[in-house]
Amino acid sequence: MAVRPLVASPDGSAISILDQTRLPHEEEWRRLDSLEAVATAIRTMQVRGAPLIGITAAYGLAIALRIDASDQALGEAAAVLRATRPTAINLRWAVERVSGAARAVPRADRARIAWAEAGAIAAEDIAACRAIGDHGLGLLRRLHQAQGGGRPVRVLTHCNAGWLAALEYGTALAPVYRAAEEGLPVEVWVDETRPRNQGWLTAWELGQRGVPHAVVTDNASGHLLQRGEVDIVLVGTDRTARNGDVCNKVGTWLKALAADEAGVPFYAAVPSSSIDWSLADGRAIPIEERESGEVTHVHGLDGTGRVTAVALGPAGTPVRNIGFDVTPARYLTGLITERGVAAASEAGLLALFPEQR
Amino acid sequence: MAVRPLVASPDGSAISILDQTRLPHEEEWRRLDSLEAVATAIRTMQVRGAPLIGITAAYGLAIALRIDASDQALGEAAAVLRATRPTAINLRWAVERVSGAARAVPRADRARIAWAEAGAIAAEDIAACRAIGDHGLGLLRRLHQAQGGGRPVRVLTHCNAGWLAALEYGTALAPVYRAAEEGLPVEVWVDETRPRNQGWLTAWELGQRGVPHAVVTDNASGHLLQRGEVDIVLVGTDRTARNGDVCNKVGTWLKALAADEAGVPFYAAVPSSSIDWSLADGRAIPIEERESGEVTHVHGLDGTGRVTAVALGPAGTPVRNIGFDVTPARYLTGLITERGVAAASEAGLLALFPEQR
Repeated sequence: MAVRPLVASPDGSAISILDQTRLPHEEEWRRLDSLEAVATAIRTMQVRGAPLIGITAAYGLAIALRIDASDQALGEAAAVLRATRPTAINLRWAVERVSGAARAVPRADRARIAWAEAGAIAAEDIAACRAIGDHGLGLLRRLHQAQGGGRPVRVLTHCNAGWLAALEYGTALAPVYRAAEEGLPVEVWVDETRPRNQGWLTAWELGQRGVPHAVVTDNASGHLLQRGEVDIVLVGTDRTARNGDVCNKVGTWLKALAADEAGVPFYAAVPSSSIDWSLADGRAIPIEERESGEVTHVHGLDGTGRVTAVALGPAGTPVRNIGFDVTPARYLTGLITERGVAAASEAGLLALFPEQR
Repeated sequence: MAVRPLVASPDGSAISILDQTRLPHEEEWRRLDSLEAVATAIRTMQVRGAPLIGITAAYGLAIALRIDASDQALGEAAAVLRATRPTAINLRWAVERVSGAARAVPRADRARIAWAEAGAIAAEDIAACRAIGDHGLGLLRRLHQAQGGGRPVRVLTHCNAGWLAALEYGTALAPVYRAAEEGLPVEVWVDETRPRNQGWLTAWELGQRGVPHAVVTDNASGHLLQRGEVDIVLVGTDRTARNGDVCNKVGTWLKALAADEAGVPFYAAVPSSSIDWSLADGRAIPIEERESGEVTHVHGLDGTGRVTAVALGPAGTPVRNIGFDVTPARYLTGLITERGVAAASEAGLLALFPEQR
């Protein structure tokens, strides 16, 4: 795994991120060395993906503490970072974890301790993703055997929950990358994922790793499921409630319905950092609504090789831009966590995370 | 209803069409005066929408007969037109009807008779759409009353089945336009409908008629349905099987699943010209797959006001471009035909169309 989308500078002064608003057309790195730069990068989705925005925010808080490590500044910086995106719980979780570590030490040590804690979060995230990959690989192996081993396992995914959304393996795509490493044949149907077209990021990153894939419109995956062209659906999560309800990129819910109807297993890859143990179910998860321009315009490469925005419809057309939806737990075959595959229920999660009882 | 997307020239030599590949950015009319021009216009979706391509093909056959009205030329022209698009049955139905009318008369009269038959099909289509509008208006009225009349009826639609897809009222949007005419308050959620973004055509045509609407991504409508923000779903159909299975623009199936789960009524507007009485169910309907460029690129208006195509992902990314899907009859609340609202079943359809027993 050669490239990570975030690199922390050794001296603790900044992070460099691969600007995901330029991908897949341009590989442009940005150095973020202030709280404001980090907050803007998260808000504008230069960094995106629930695990990665948690890690980015953790580093952002450490960077802020280099300027002012007072209790007040710490609280304000944490509030700024928490407010950048509302839905993913990793963000809040990571900010609180770094805040707690910093508050526990004298002001002079806070920036250093916070930076180390951010590094620990990053390292744990990599380990969790790798473990999710191994547990998911077991599912893919069983499917491959059950279908006689004669053809690749056909995975459908929505949005991007690969190494661009985390640091190495990603979440939903970790089983795919582990399968590729182990020589288990896989092919990936990639939902385009309007409005931000993260499916094209997924196509790009799968291509970088040599994993066979094809992009389909968000509309098409219901047909693929209905006609038996998908063996398993793997998605990520931005926040998982205690009962196993999964909030993920808008459109996930439609795929879950179609998978259920088709009898195709549907799993979410759920690092425990994305579980909101305080929520009994998914109904109270805040659903981000973003600016209309993401729907009214599309970015792409024009004929001259320049990244250009084009307007799809009449100027001033009213738009509603909903970022996420909630898939009720009963539509999930299971949750792939770093500790194993859980039933999508409170009992299932607590069996793997008994400390949350 | 001031504008129609197709105008037949009084002398029977040509039709003029509003080029729907340029909409909603440019209103460009094209004169089609040869079989080849008509076939190309249908194939490239300069004209689109099941009713309209039937009408266009009917005129196209009449135009071809002006050059050569022999049995052989008639058969060949019909074959060319039938092959332009595979899914919508209206096309085949209209071509066969005009062929039959032409064959029944001497060669010298064939072009004139075919032209008249195409005109009859167009006139019947307008009447059918208007009748669908009236029957659908009844459904909207009952919803409005049932919810206490305090707010607009919120309709969700997918693709474009309005006056751009037919001649006047359209099919799925006919009830909406009739409601607007009668002063019944309605608002329309418009699915974007990737890859061809016909939702933006729907937004444009609703805007032209002053009907309140908002565009959402195809992914978002599941969330809207789940959260109670939709009162009724109205879609068109490209081919309806004898048992009530509806083949329509890809993605329709996902909306039907979400509507069913949410308990929201889901209707297809079904002119009888779109019913394939020869098919027991929808499984055998040919599903058009189109070129990958429709998925890899998006057309829109760039910053300089020019219509531009932009590439969304890495060049050479494999793509599957599926045009339609089949919604099984049991997911439909009913079929709005020109003779009334039928249950989505063979018995339901035959009760309204006893001549098909």
